[in-house]
Amino acid sequence: MKSKAIFYHAGCPVCVEAEQSVANALDKQDYDVEIVHLAEQQSRIEEAESAGVKSVPALLLGEKVFHINFGAALSDLK
Amino acid sequence: MKSKAIFYHAGCPVCVEAEQSVANALDKQDYDVEIVHLAEQQSRIEEAESAGVKSVPALLLGEKVFHINFGAALSDLK
Repeated sequence: MKSKAIFYHAGCPVCVEAEQSVANALDKQDYDVEIVHLAEQQSRIEEAESAGVKSVPALLLGEKVFHINFGAALSDLK
Repeated sequence: MKSKAIFYHAGCPVCVEAEQSVANALDKQDYDVEIVHLAEQQSRIEEAESAGVKSVPALLLGEKVFHINFGAALSDLK
């Protein structure tokens, strides 16, 4: 069964770079990768926050959050 | 042809978690993943620094550096 991976971003240049490199490099045979643009899907900010996301870009693998470089704080997207 | 991915770490808990999750999740059909423990291979700190690594854990995909969470500053490993 595939694991869930969620890549949260906000369309910023740092986010786009991380999406094109890191999110794209994930093994799609093992991971079901969802890309969530939090500036466009504000309704999902709370979900990201609950998962422990503090800034974007961030990658959620299972229940673990990995903040990749720094684009914007989650609080700035509200 | 496979692209080169280098995961730099220093054995810290944050590093181990990122290695087990992010480095492991990379598509091995597309990436040739090398794991470098900078505290044990101090001779490679300079190489990491030249690539733009400021802290560990960090993932170098091609020529792009992605700092994943924060374990230790590179300067603390010298």
